Amino acid sequence: MSKSPGEFQLIERLLKRLGPGRRAILGPGDDCAILPPARARQLLTIDSMVEEVHFKLAWGAPEALGARALTVNLSDIAAMGGKPTVCVVNLALRDGLGLRLCDRIYKGLGAAAARCGVEVVGGNVTRAGALAITIALLGEVRGAVLRRDAGRPGDTIYVTGTLGDAAAGLRILSGRLRARAAARKFLSNRFLQPTARVEAGLRLARIKPAPAAIDLSDGLWQDLGHILERSGVGAEIDAGALPLSAAYRAAVGEDPTLALGGGEDYELLFCLRHAFPAPALTRSLGVRVTRIGRITSSGKAVLINARGSLRGGPPLLTGFDQLRSRPGP
Amino acid sequence: MSKSPGEFQLIERLLKRLGPGRRAILGPGDDCAILPPARARQLLTIDSMVEEVHFKLAWGAPEALGARALTVNLSDIAAMGGKPTVCVVNLALRDGLGLRLCDRIYKGLGAAAARCGVEVVGGNVTRAGALAITIALLGEVRGAVLRRDAGRPGDTIYVTGTLGDAAAGLRILSGRLRARAAARKFLSNRFLQPTARVEAGLRLARIKPAPAAIDLSDGLWQDLGHILERSGVGAEIDAGALPLSAAYRAAVGEDPTLALGGGEDYELLFCLRHAFPAPALTRSLGVRVTRIGRITSSGKAVLINARGSLRGGPPLLTGFDQLRSRPGP
Repeated sequence: MSKSPGEFQLIERLLKRLGPGRRAILGPGDDCAILPPARARQLLTIDSMVEEVHFKLAWGAPEALGARALTVNLSDIAAMGGKPTVCVVNLALRDGLGLRLCDRIYKGLGAAAARCGVEVVGGNVTRAGALAITIALLGEVRGAVLRRDAGRPGDTIYVTGTLGDAAAGLRILSGRLRARAAARKFLSNRFLQPTARVEAGLRLARIKPAPAAIDLSDGLWQDLGHILERSGVGAEIDAGALPLSAAYRAAVGEDPTLALGGGEDYELLFCLRHAFPAPALTRSLGVRVTRIGRITSSGKAVLINARGSLRGGPPLLTGFDQLRSRPGP
Repeated sequence: MSKSPGEFQLIERLLKRLGPGRRAILGPGDDCAILPPARARQLLTIDSMVEEVHFKLAWGAPEALGARALTVNLSDIAAMGGKPTVCVVNLALRDGLGLRLCDRIYKGLGAAAARCGVEVVGGNVTRAGALAITIALLGEVRGAVLRRDAGRPGDTIYVTGTLGDAAAGLRILSGRLRARAAARKFLSNRFLQPTARVEAGLRLARIKPAPAAIDLSDGLWQDLGHILERSGVGAEIDAGALPLSAAYRAAVGEDPTLALGGGEDYELLFCLRHAFPAPALTRSLGVRVTRIGRITSSGKAVLINARGSLRGGPPLLTGFDQLRSRPGP
């Protein structure tokens, strides 16, 4: 789309920040990036972060924002067991945002990309009413692919990390939840600086048969629903087994509502045909793994061992059609 | 990023509109699309169209908007001599936009994709303050690549199609220019329904040595500037040779300001080492081709034969540094 010379100079300036790459034959500066032939199958995903919808600038450093915009895409690649390779970035800028802010966003994005071997090969800057960062990310898969449709009755369901931290962090950032300093910092950072489980995804892809997997961007219950729908199965989730961080317990208590329904954790949920003890999986994946339930043939998602009250109300306790599921945040 | 069930259903609904594909191993519905290995070098580009910045909904049919969002990306692939293959789409929706509108946008996008053999392999829907369509498009190049840095002194400069029509159309749509019905319709359509010169780009890539090329998204003068900067050369453009449509002449007259500075035409500008007569190129590229000037070693862009007054003012008439160039719209 038509740009002003200022927009061009900004693109050039930002992309130069990212330095020279080795994955691209021709990087930023032409109409397209040129990439070498891909011997492996490729993964392609796109995701967007919009100011006032997904974040507020006041919540954290612009560097973290840039990193997070990449992380949410990395997480999609991780969930398929892929290795992220190159990305292109569309930055929508509103009036009143200075060059310094853009530099800092790109600095964080560039650092996050470098950490996982991703090259930013092109970008675009456009005007808009709100700041938005949209990234399309390519990856490659050399072995098995982790798919949503691979769940089978009897599979054991696991998750990485702890659940609900980001949702609690979001509530703290937006003034809807209070916590002591340590918990506040931990939970806010889990929202502002999530980690994509790329290495864990790559290691999961070596397990046979290939596990069904999905990343937890929208909350356990909703993301599990995608696995169930695609695989044509049901699930039984043990509410008492959900991994809650000490900070979550300190700020929220034992109520697992946010752990079930809160999004943005970017942990992985996966299903194994042959159950492994969680400690062994924790060692081999390099991240805490918790067994939380099993795949059933019921066609429904059922929550068991839900002690106390869930803010989501009775449906969660009795099992319900996963297509209509979502506990209220 | 976290989504509501409604957003998910919308993604599913929209992507189903696009039908099954043959380029993807796994299309929409998982965390990423899976693409087969690519034997050829690949091109990757991203571009975005934002409501109230690049378009208004009242200006035309939603189908045309969807098609145009793809066309602006196709044009980047065309400018490199590539064949577009697959894309992912990020749709940002504001309140008040109905499902019917989304369906119509995707219908137009899907039809445009089908016309040029592109498969929409994934997508994302997010809330935002304004409607925005961001597309990342992959392409492939089997032969030479048309690059911005390949211009050499002595090269002859050509453009496809006619220039300034889209800029005139934009002015008509936004009430800043009046024209009779036929010219109004032609010029508005040149803005609302541009054509990417994909086939012409593929044919250009067969010429040896590979021509320098760029697509005219930002206006001849600015886009030429990119070629000159990247190639380290200058240019002499014959104002009297610029191809103006009959509708442009009827609405704007002989003033070539919009043809020089107006964007969104999505024609190709290219530079040939060995000059061919324009009629022969017109036949072989399948689109009207006009010779408009030559590459020089001066390091400056100079406009010659500029009759009458240019709204851009004297700098255009005397030659100036292309890095600071842009005639006012």
